Amino acid sequence: MDLIKKLHEIVGIDRATTSPMQLYCYSSDSSQIRGTPECVVRPQNTGQVSQVLRFANEHDIPVTARGAGTGLAGGAVALEGGIVLDLSGMDRILDIDINNLQVAVEPGVIHSRLNEVLGTEGFFFPPDPGSSEMCTLGGLIANNGSGMRSVKYGTTRSYVLDLEIVMADGSVINTGSKTLKSSAGYDLTRLMVGSEGTLGIITKAVLKILPLPKARTVVLASFDNPVLAGEAVVKTLSAGVIPSACEILDRATVEVLNAYDPNIAIPDAGATILFELDGTVSSVKEQAKIVEAVCMPFASGIRIAAGGEEMKEIWSARRLVGAAISRIDPNKTRVYVGEDIGVPIKEVPRMLKFIQSISGEFGLPIITYGHIGDGNLHTGMCIDMLDNEQWKQLDLAADKIHRTAIMLGGTVSAEHGIGSARSKYMRLERGNALDVMILIKRALDPRGILNPGKLGL
Amino acid sequence: MDLIKKLHEIVGIDRATTSPMQLYCYSSDSSQIRGTPECVVRPQNTGQVSQVLRFANEHDIPVTARGAGTGLAGGAVALEGGIVLDLSGMDRILDIDINNLQVAVEPGVIHSRLNEVLGTEGFFFPPDPGSSEMCTLGGLIANNGSGMRSVKYGTTRSYVLDLEIVMADGSVINTGSKTLKSSAGYDLTRLMVGSEGTLGIITKAVLKILPLPKARTVVLASFDNPVLAGEAVVKTLSAGVIPSACEILDRATVEVLNAYDPNIAIPDAGATILFELDGTVSSVKEQAKIVEAVCMPFASGIRIAAGGEEMKEIWSARRLVGAAISRIDPNKTRVYVGEDIGVPIKEVPRMLKFIQSISGEFGLPIITYGHIGDGNLHTGMCIDMLDNEQWKQLDLAADKIHRTAIMLGGTVSAEHGIGSARSKYMRLERGNALDVMILIKRALDPRGILNPGKLGL
Repeated sequence: MDLIKKLHEIVGIDRATTSPMQLYCYSSDSSQIRGTPECVVRPQNTGQVSQVLRFANEHDIPVTARGAGTGLAGGAVALEGGIVLDLSGMDRILDIDINNLQVAVEPGVIHSRLNEVLGTEGFFFPPDPGSSEMCTLGGLIANNGSGMRSVKYGTTRSYVLDLEIVMADGSVINTGSKTLKSSAGYDLTRLMVGSEGTLGIITKAVLKILPLPKARTVVLASFDNPVLAGEAVVKTLSAGVIPSACEILDRATVEVLNAYDPNIAIPDAGATILFELDGTVSSVKEQAKIVEAVCMPFASGIRIAAGGEEMKEIWSARRLVGAAISRIDPNKTRVYVGEDIGVPIKEVPRMLKFIQSISGEFGLPIITYGHIGDGNLHTGMCIDMLDNEQWKQLDLAADKIHRTAIMLGGTVSAEHGIGSARSKYMRLERGNALDVMILIKRALDPRGILNPGKLGL
Repeated sequence: MDLIKKLHEIVGIDRATTSPMQLYCYSSDSSQIRGTPECVVRPQNTGQVSQVLRFANEHDIPVTARGAGTGLAGGAVALEGGIVLDLSGMDRILDIDINNLQVAVEPGVIHSRLNEVLGTEGFFFPPDPGSSEMCTLGGLIANNGSGMRSVKYGTTRSYVLDLEIVMADGSVINTGSKTLKSSAGYDLTRLMVGSEGTLGIITKAVLKILPLPKARTVVLASFDNPVLAGEAVVKTLSAGVIPSACEILDRATVEVLNAYDPNIAIPDAGATILFELDGTVSSVKEQAKIVEAVCMPFASGIRIAAGGEEMKEIWSARRLVGAAISRIDPNKTRVYVGEDIGVPIKEVPRMLKFIQSISGEFGLPIITYGHIGDGNLHTGMCIDMLDNEQWKQLDLAADKIHRTAIMLGGTVSAEHGIGSARSKYMRLERGNALDVMILIKRALDPRGILNPGKLGL
């Protein structure tokens, strides 16, 4: 069987390659995971994806789908060779159907582009991954990504109404419909969301959209320690205010930010919470007052953004965290491992303490920030990437972070996915539910061609 | 094999029966579907459910789970005999964990009881089925029920964090965890929600809860015809107001209500929309003003409830619709068929027109009301149940309603479930996605013991 010849037949001579340089470019995503495919295919439509899969299935060739390669767990890396299916070229916004509160897109559409287009109509697609400017919607759906706004708006899973999926054998199904609500059989849509390309390939998605809120503000609250911050967050939610974002920065994160840019005016504190509130003009003011009143007994300082400018300033500081970490030490690089744990909300303060103790134990500075409103914490660890001893300590620290999160009833991935980087924790976290996942995987992909080596399957 | 002897061993002598009188009571739910089991078992804990399933699986005995029997599609009816597993006795609220925004319950807890208990803490579980006072949470989850508030709060699926499930072979899994957000493998939780007892038996559920809104109001808007009403709803959503309920009553429904109780002060109109708005005190006022302004150009009349009393009055009228229908004619009984279609929002006016033309075609008065905000319409048809000709016309009318909904891109069940009453439409509505459902069913229940004859599987 001449694989590349067959692929050229399907997609055309310029859309399938075995060039070593190309293959090298496709041998990693944004994680440390590496794996080189035998060839890369850039299909232009569902029919081509279907033909590629039918052929691959007949010949037991692994197929790994890829969007923008921004994944942090190796999900788009071809661990067992075979074909990388680069879907970034299928990037049309097919339909903007405001009256039905939905859009139809191809998988390669960049997240921020969709929201730019929707913004002109006064609408938005709520999930907001940090990689918005780069990541594709297909990748976001395959990983059930979310971001800062999930505390109020939920994850990507909540916004997918229908997926066109090419199954392992090349058949094409639609998992849902254009209706907003259905109780007609199994929810294949949500089974596919988060399945990381192991059950089928997303070739089209119908997404629910919402009207843009009229107003937004930010409340910045400082606390002497994370326990007080955690209590303030729980009390705020209980008071009936669901912020559109609820972010925590630990002391180290604020220090890093202030070192990165001295103009960033976040006060030094044991823990800082940023509440973003959205809604109508008056409801935003009202919510801000409630947040202030609820946090007052716990906080060492509270500031409500006076206007749009101040709000943008505070918020851009939050967005800078990722970049600021990399400046801690010019000889060190941030490595994304153990970076996406989730725990039940009330365990957040305990988890933060554990992380600090792990930091001490392994002699690694760790900063922690994240979406406290839904218990999702991101850690930032930097090492000299040429130092094997530091790698070892990093891996040990990450392992302990993962096991601690599971021990607290949490997860090793709240939004970045399992890929292969975290697959070894699947049994520990999911117990014998993993056996049920394996049964489903075997039923839908009996020859095991779809993204092998992932999710602990 | 002496089935009842074995069951007595597992659950005790007084919790399993083959008494014909008992079996008769368990031979139907709230639909027209009938099927008599060989025995009824009322387990008290997960261990007993597991033992029953292991035994049934070994001996190829069908097992049909049942909560309160309020289902409208035969989902809890034992079509192929075997065991009915009555879970209504497992009715403990196991944990109210306010700080984690969640509760843990057994499947037999009555929906309204949970909300009574949560209300004292200032919280609520948002799905609000019409059968709240009777239905169990297990049944609600198995059918992905919802109700009037799903336009803002989503369906039951959005609130299930974790399910303890007894699989067909008796093994017990947990599908999720106590974290609010996870991207760790397949979403088995949402696969189980809505699977109507065909993939496993729910023995415990962890549910997300929300703080009760501080305030509510109702806006009643009258329109000359459903097209204008539909436009007003779309414009309202686009204006950034997501009502906590958005209900439509057609002309016939308002007539029925006014005939039932002349004190009900809903003006006669081509279509009436009830908007319920919730939030903080000021945001509710603000939203009401926006709704009023947006609807004004389309409406023949608008009324904002002046206070709590007026709001209750209007809302109780909506809740009376089901009862009022049964009074249309003392010789007729409401039959629940074709009663739960869903269509894309913008197709609601067209669907309403189709229903009126079907009503004429088959000589059956049909009233229509429902959750226009998410495209879910309920029809009410009454016949003389002893008249075979009327039954025939009813079935023909319902069939046409179902096919029309599918033709408009909709569903034959938005919230009541498929059961066996609607299973013949699964292929038409879901296409070859049904084949994928069948593969999953066979993988998880290879001997086919779980609720056979349902969902078109």
